[in-house]
Amino acid sequence: MLQSIGYGAAELNQPLDLMQFERREPGPHDVQIDIEYCGVCHSDLHTVRNEWNNTVYPVVPGHEIVGRVTYVGAHVSRFKPGDLVGVGCMVDSCQHCESCEDGLEQYCENGFTGTYNSEETQIGGMTFGGYADNIVVNEKFVLRIPDNLDPAAAAPLLCAGITTYSPLRHWGVKKGDKVGIVGLGGLGHMAIKIAHAMGAHVVLFTTTKGKKADAIRLGADEAVLSTDPTEMAAHENSFDFILNAVAAPHNLDAFLVLLKRDRTMTLVGAPASPHPSPQVFNLIMKRRQLAGSLIGGIAETQEMLDFCGEHGIVSDIELIPIQKINDAYERMLKSDVKYRFVIDMASLRNAHAEKSTDAKA
Amino acid sequence: MLQSIGYGAAELNQPLDLMQFERREPGPHDVQIDIEYCGVCHSDLHTVRNEWNNTVYPVVPGHEIVGRVTYVGAHVSRFKPGDLVGVGCMVDSCQHCESCEDGLEQYCENGFTGTYNSEETQIGGMTFGGYADNIVVNEKFVLRIPDNLDPAAAAPLLCAGITTYSPLRHWGVKKGDKVGIVGLGGLGHMAIKIAHAMGAHVVLFTTTKGKKADAIRLGADEAVLSTDPTEMAAHENSFDFILNAVAAPHNLDAFLVLLKRDRTMTLVGAPASPHPSPQVFNLIMKRRQLAGSLIGGIAETQEMLDFCGEHGIVSDIELIPIQKINDAYERMLKSDVKYRFVIDMASLRNAHAEKSTDAKA
Repeated sequence: MLQSIGYGAAELNQPLDLMQFERREPGPHDVQIDIEYCGVCHSDLHTVRNEWNNTVYPVVPGHEIVGRVTYVGAHVSRFKPGDLVGVGCMVDSCQHCESCEDGLEQYCENGFTGTYNSEETQIGGMTFGGYADNIVVNEKFVLRIPDNLDPAAAAPLLCAGITTYSPLRHWGVKKGDKVGIVGLGGLGHMAIKIAHAMGAHVVLFTTTKGKKADAIRLGADEAVLSTDPTEMAAHENSFDFILNAVAAPHNLDAFLVLLKRDRTMTLVGAPASPHPSPQVFNLIMKRRQLAGSLIGGIAETQEMLDFCGEHGIVSDIELIPIQKINDAYERMLKSDVKYRFVIDMASLRNAHAEKSTDAKA
Repeated sequence: MLQSIGYGAAELNQPLDLMQFERREPGPHDVQIDIEYCGVCHSDLHTVRNEWNNTVYPVVPGHEIVGRVTYVGAHVSRFKPGDLVGVGCMVDSCQHCESCEDGLEQYCENGFTGTYNSEETQIGGMTFGGYADNIVVNEKFVLRIPDNLDPAAAAPLLCAGITTYSPLRHWGVKKGDKVGIVGLGGLGHMAIKIAHAMGAHVVLFTTTKGKKADAIRLGADEAVLSTDPTEMAAHENSFDFILNAVAAPHNLDAFLVLLKRDRTMTLVGAPASPHPSPQVFNLIMKRRQLAGSLIGGIAETQEMLDFCGEHGIVSDIELIPIQKINDAYERMLKSDVKYRFVIDMASLRNAHAEKSTDAKA
């Protein structure tokens, strides 16, 4: 077994702390990676605190992983030691259902294997994520990080990036389209950058007046205060697509009426309690659609990374040592981050080295 | 002005009764029609009772109209006296917005002119519908009824037929697709017949066990009791399209989970109070879509009529004299009709003739 160290929660209501755990030895199709950076996603917090009622402890979160290949199995053809690579939300899927065959592993009919808190199908137990020094992943689920991107700031592309890129692509956003982005957080700020790079006229909707200037800085053409009926009314029936990245329950009708005929608003956040029920009338009168979207497939994730490389897109991040992770969770809950925490995994190695030295002393 | 007689409501809380009113004289682009049959749609009742808070009295309802052309204006090229024609929910639209140019007059950006209770843009006042002896309509909004169809039973195609045909076509239903129809009423029974004729495997969902046999008779391949969790579970992730024709608030999630990845459930009924809010999770996990659809465009309505002619599709109707209309409304509220009332307009002419005779006596 491969020995790993990382930060995880030993049980419910415990803060994240240094722990040791085991992963499978790399098999012939596996890539072993030394993790350099790992983004902090709200899903990590939901899982650590068992807010989705499916957490198996101990849990080591993290699914926005960037690192260097240190070893490749005998049948690995696409990677070699030293390559800068990424791992996102998935590390395996059935590979034979209709969705997998369509390159949409995120919708695997048999359920994909999550990067953490999923069944480890080869050695049993659960998968452990990227708040760790290393990881072993089937090469099919390993992505190539473009050389020109800052590796720390590229980490959030693996979840926040693909979660917004995929629906923008799937619903055909193109040059000149008017695209709305609802909410300026980790997802929203990536959506602005990506939609802008696609050539869209980007309008950011926020309930926080103070975020307007930042939206423009990030690439939005307009920023609208969604609580202001006059500002909102000016945009009725005008959008080609709206990506709604707000997970808190809110009035969907306020945005549905902004869509042109035959257009779609896609939700990428799932609120803990339901949104107020949208009015059917707003769907019927313009044949509008309300949809959802989940991350993206592996091929599409590579396409997104290449697109971001081409356009020089990375996340706005605050780099933290892993020792600050519990504090970062509290700040994330207060939206006190612009716009993504990324853990510098050198801090984990140093911590472990110090601890080992202490033990010997 | 053209003198008309019909059945209408003089004011709020009045039953429908015989009344006289005026229409515009046919202009150069107009067709004058002697109405032979008019279907009874639930919208008629909503309007008569001002349930949408937009009724202008007096109101003469009816937008499932079949009759014979009696006169055509100088510039009318597509019709001649004696033709069997139909008029549906619209009698005009702006003709120059994007939706009109796309042949989707029902989504006219400037608002289409409804067959009744809409502004009469040429002579002022309101439009009056098909519970009447005649009507005058711009030829662009006049449809041709296929010769082989029973004209009385064809009348409901003008609303119930196109309202179900249009979304089935728009969402690409084709031979072999598994299509769900929710609710067996005026719309649902048309949807079964049309989807069956398109070659789909049709599954009817009902809350009434007693309707199952009738669904099969109408062309459904299966009928499912939507209140039975076991019956429902057997259909999870299996539908290519679901047309939901139920206007009463109900649990949409029960049907959303039956859709395959990337598929759509389209609502054609608008409930007075909202449905329980659907779970975002059910949209996100399979990239599903919830949509709405409103009747259909004029070209598509003609396509639907021709399709019905080709496949011998008409509505199951109960023919009534116009004197029974108030009773029919009460029965409609109890779903006591299989599946559409159609008014035989000969009864109106007879009534008027008798009244005239009485007056002279």
